[in-house]
Amino acid sequence: MNVHTVSLADARRVIGAGEVKAVELGQPSNIAVVDAGGNLVAHVRMDGAWIGSIDISINKAFTSRAFDISTQDLGDNAAPGQQFFGIHASNNGRVMIFAGGIPLRDGDTVVGAVGVSGGSGAQDQEIAEAAAAAL
Amino acid sequence: MNVHTVSLADARRVIGAGEVKAVELGQPSNIAVVDAGGNLVAHVRMDGAWIGSIDISINKAFTSRAFDISTQDLGDNAAPGQQFFGIHASNNGRVMIFAGGIPLRDGDTVVGAVGVSGGSGAQDQEIAEAAAAAL
Amino acid sequence: MNVHTVSLADARRVIGAGEVKAVELGQPSNIAVVDAGGNLVAHVRMDGAWIGSIDISINKAFTSRAFDISTQDLGDNAAPGQQFFGIHASNNGRVMIFAGGIPLRDGDTVVGAVGVSGGSGAQDQEIAEAAAAAL
Amino acid sequence: MNVHTVSLADARRVIGAGEVKAVELGQPSNIAVVDAGGNLVAHVRMDGAWIGSIDISINKAFTSRAFDISTQDLGDNAAPGQQFFGIHASNNGRVMIFAGGIPLRDGDTVVGAVGVSGGSGAQDQEIAEAAAAAL
Repeated sequence: MNVHTVSLADARRVIGAGEVKAVELGQPSNIAVVDAGGNLVAHVRMDGAWIGSIDISINKAFTSRAFDISTQDLGDNAAPGQQFFGIHASNNGRVMIFAGGIPLRDGDTVVGAVGVSGGSGAQDQEIAEAAAAAL
Repeated sequence: MNVHTVSLADARRVIGAGEVKAVELGQPSNIAVVDAGGNLVAHVRMDGAWIGSIDISINKAFTSRAFDISTQDLGDNAAPGQQFFGIHASNNGRVMIFAGGIPLRDGDTVVGAVGVSGGSGAQDQEIAEAAAAAL
Repeated sequence: MNVHTVSLADARRVIGAGEVKAVELGQPSNIAVVDAGGNLVAHVRMDGAWIGSIDISINKAFTSRAFDISTQDLGDNAAPGQQFFGIHASNNGRVMIFAGGIPLRDGDTVVGAVGVSGGSGAQDQEIAEAAAAAL
Repeated sequence: MNVHTVSLADARRVIGAGEVKAVELGQPSNIAVVDAGGNLVAHVRMDGAWIGSIDISINKAFTSRAFDISTQDLGDNAAPGQQFFGIHASNNGRVMIFAGGIPLRDGDTVVGAVGVSGGSGAQDQEIAEAAAAAL
């Protein structure tokens, strides 16, 4: 069978669109793209962006592809009392449950994911949406 | 490009001021300073301070620089229902989300961070503030 | 004190030059750049490059900056019977002791490092050298 | 029973003596002291010393106390074909098997250890010996 996935060129286009939005918001960010296998394709840390967000951006992207869901929606399901509470302890600490990770889709197929970290949850989400729209 | 960071002499001055406050409060503490890259510059464990706080003091300092925020404020944002709930699972367990870590600033620039662990949250915070003020 | 470090623009130029050499050699590769603090600035995985080399490229770059030495030269010193035998057990498995990591220098100052993984040691080294030359 | 161990004042004296030797050799170093429990008492990274040596200095000190032996002597026993070959895989990567870690003794009793990392094995050893002599 074939797996539909992102290329490095796709990842760069996605990241570039995220950077444009990050500059517009005045929020230096880390932006990462993973492929259909959940493995990193490309990452950038904009000048001045948090060093603690390197890991988070990569793992937001991983998480979004790992479960084919935005990290924001996963977070809603991972809140205390919800069905996936505790999921962040799985996968050796790679599961991020707050906004900024979005699956990359080609039609109905998830072909990878983008993860953004550097600002508020709302900013990360907005940058990730702008990035994903460029696929 | 250039990055402004703390020297070992700076770190010692910061730690020394923290120790003075810790003695004043009667609370033996671990005190650590990281540089602009988040890497440890110096650490001391005062006689009688908790051995479990070695790691915590170093990682509070790391966290404060990793996100340019006090660990107390990060903790508020990492509570259930808040925008960064779950962030403590990132960065391989190095993210501390309770009081005692403070960025070290030279004007508007974060040049490193100090982390204190050994007493109550309020004590750790007070010692960290006294330490940071000595930069 | 001030530390001289690479910007994202620097990292992209370095990676781009590495990609040109990798295409010339017909060897898809992972290429990563870290800054003066050893923290990731940018990473790319060329289409078809090994997924096991994501981690290796990033950690070759880390290692080269962590010890201001090429990973090839560190490897010579880390062989059985040599002065640093066993160093690969340090730093939580992040120390790579085979060719492909090179410090990035501005004059005499190490401002970061590049790490390449994907082919033979000789290929990784050649790509890293081409990348570093573009700083 | 009583455990004889180093105080923070002892650790500072030891580290200070190491720094004097490091300056004399022109080799910026990381220097760490652990107590009888193998737990960190104090650490300094001299300006310009390798960031990869933070972990190594702390773990050389740990190793020397963990086995009451210099890391150089342990290394001889951990070489391929020797009785402790493979020991560096134990203790979660904390066992360092190259020169620079020395037990701190009060008479015949090991009360802690010092670990030095930053230069050649011979330099690290010389600095550690100067440090240990100041106990």
